[in-house]
Amino acid sequence: MAAGWPDKRFVDRIGTALPIVQAPMAGAGDHVLAVAAAAGGALGSIPCGMLTPDQAAAEVSAVRAASTAPINLNFFCHTLPPEPDEAAWRALLQPFYTEFGLDGPGAPPPLRRPFDTAMAGLVETLWPEVVSFHFGLPDRALLDRVRATGAAIVGNATTIDEARWLDSRGVDFIIAQGSEAGGHAGHFLGGDCAEAMGTFALLPQVVDAVSVPVIAAGGIADARGIAAAFLLGAAAVQIGTAYLRTPESRIFPKHREMLGSAAAEHSVVTNVFSGGLARGLRNRLVDAIGPIGRDVPPYPYASNMLGALRRAAEAAGDIGFSPAWAGQAARLGHDEPAEVLTKRLGREAMALLGDRQ
Amino acid sequence: MAAGWPDKRFVDRIGTALPIVQAPMAGAGDHVLAVAAAAGGALGSIPCGMLTPDQAAAEVSAVRAASTAPINLNFFCHTLPPEPDEAAWRALLQPFYTEFGLDGPGAPPPLRRPFDTAMAGLVETLWPEVVSFHFGLPDRALLDRVRATGAAIVGNATTIDEARWLDSRGVDFIIAQGSEAGGHAGHFLGGDCAEAMGTFALLPQVVDAVSVPVIAAGGIADARGIAAAFLLGAAAVQIGTAYLRTPESRIFPKHREMLGSAAAEHSVVTNVFSGGLARGLRNRLVDAIGPIGRDVPPYPYASNMLGALRRAAEAAGDIGFSPAWAGQAARLGHDEPAEVLTKRLGREAMALLGDRQ
Repeated sequence: MAAGWPDKRFVDRIGTALPIVQAPMAGAGDHVLAVAAAAGGALGSIPCGMLTPDQAAAEVSAVRAASTAPINLNFFCHTLPPEPDEAAWRALLQPFYTEFGLDGPGAPPPLRRPFDTAMAGLVETLWPEVVSFHFGLPDRALLDRVRATGAAIVGNATTIDEARWLDSRGVDFIIAQGSEAGGHAGHFLGGDCAEAMGTFALLPQVVDAVSVPVIAAGGIADARGIAAAFLLGAAAVQIGTAYLRTPESRIFPKHREMLGSAAAEHSVVTNVFSGGLARGLRNRLVDAIGPIGRDVPPYPYASNMLGALRRAAEAAGDIGFSPAWAGQAARLGHDEPAEVLTKRLGREAMALLGDRQ
Repeated sequence: MAAGWPDKRFVDRIGTALPIVQAPMAGAGDHVLAVAAAAGGALGSIPCGMLTPDQAAAEVSAVRAASTAPINLNFFCHTLPPEPDEAAWRALLQPFYTEFGLDGPGAPPPLRRPFDTAMAGLVETLWPEVVSFHFGLPDRALLDRVRATGAAIVGNATTIDEARWLDSRGVDFIIAQGSEAGGHAGHFLGGDCAEAMGTFALLPQVVDAVSVPVIAAGGIADARGIAAAFLLGAAAVQIGTAYLRTPESRIFPKHREMLGSAAAEHSVVTNVFSGGLARGLRNRLVDAIGPIGRDVPPYPYASNMLGALRRAAEAAGDIGFSPAWAGQAARLGHDEPAEVLTKRLGREAMALLGDRQ
């Protein structure tokens, strides 16, 4: 299957037909998407960063029941800061609470929690073939427990320094996540967002700087992007936004509609939904507070005060207060099932690259 | 010569051996660099945005005396705003004037002026094979005069909307300038800098959106980048920072040294040197005022107050107040003559792409 890929290290190690990782997208993709992407030949991913261990176990069981393909579990490794004073943030949001007839922020949505001993125990039980980490890595003891399961370990770098850091800690693959990527930028070494690097520049420099195969992410939504990533030195690609456009993703209808519209040409990096920097489409909250608001609590606390507001707005068909994550290549995608998308990407990329043989 | 390029529209129309444009870099590249790049097979460029018509004519004469290759003249098309109140900006700079023993800002450096009737007359005299415009296009009457000379007209887009705008005005080629690019981002339709697009996402969407061949720019400094740009749909590439590293460029020694160092991994988009958004390396002024300073006068006026300060600092071996432009792929370059660089890029990119034939 993989005969024509210029770099076979990913497919040889992971055992997928295609060097494509269906990106873990917390809140937007679950076992349904992972199974469909895996059926097409990609590595399916389960985003665990907003799940309890029981929920994560249930997701994995659902995948295992439907597929024999390898699976990737994705976890967050941020440092959870002390709970912030949210008075200024609440004051900014108060007019919206009033508009939607809410007494206040209401119950917070699930907090994004860093990988911990409970999740390490889960990995030891579930034996995922791949474990990927966002926002750095867990501490050495936890990482060693994951490594001991035999899982391939994937780290995420947004800078060349982060890639070197991950390489020095012995990960098996490094994602080079360019600034085109949708959702949260996985930076963790205190980088200045003014220095955010595009995939075209980041990828080859990471390839040159590290000893392990590199997975390209950010701005890749069609076969041209896959082929180009391989010529820049990638051994695989991670694709997110294109999978958001499949019927298997769990996104709000208005979000889906925006991804196929001119709005998708104008995504911005914003901190208003979580406190962390993440790329999404402009909506009312982004325009009112940000894109980068100064009184937004640090990641991941900002989302605490948005739960009721988001639900109330969505009930009215409005995603003005919901994150509509999108990468900059959203419009290169199509509305098609994840298995069809995956197979098409593989076939078309091989045609572009295969002519090289 | 060009048999192996997947898209030959650029080389067929312009007549260069290679589909490479040596980027015009005002202040950093002149006829010496253009002639050397052209000797290697690229399209050499003369940046005219900071030159008088007489200076531009002298540059072209020097190229014509040394080369029969086609030449590109580059002009700016910004709207010159009214002269701003510079009191707040001057107050910010006063401590630096004091530190360097200066009475004040001194004589301003050459102001970046938009393309005008005098320059159109020059084009009619000099018959450049290519004329490229940054920050939009001149008005229709001036553009028609340029077109009537037979010059191929090149516009620069930083967004898909800008590319459509240029296409509708009948340019012959459109540069898709990604956010990785060094120097000034050529945006002109009022785009929000929060929406700056990386080359990997911008290029294929521009290719899909317009009717003319696209020149990729931003993050391209080696053969991998050239090959990847072609797979993303480019018909040529424009390369700047890699040419800054050649001995033919006119940059301060410290700037040259930084381009080959880890500092080049940390470029930022800043407005402190001109008032316009431009990517360069961090230095003292960037860190003191920006990267994006709010009291910086609009483009191009900010540079007016920096001339004496820059000269005084440079005389002390310090480029803390000089723009050290750099794209995000600076470290992929090498210190080598422009002709050698050009030929190597062409040969290596052909090897990567030629295997496809």
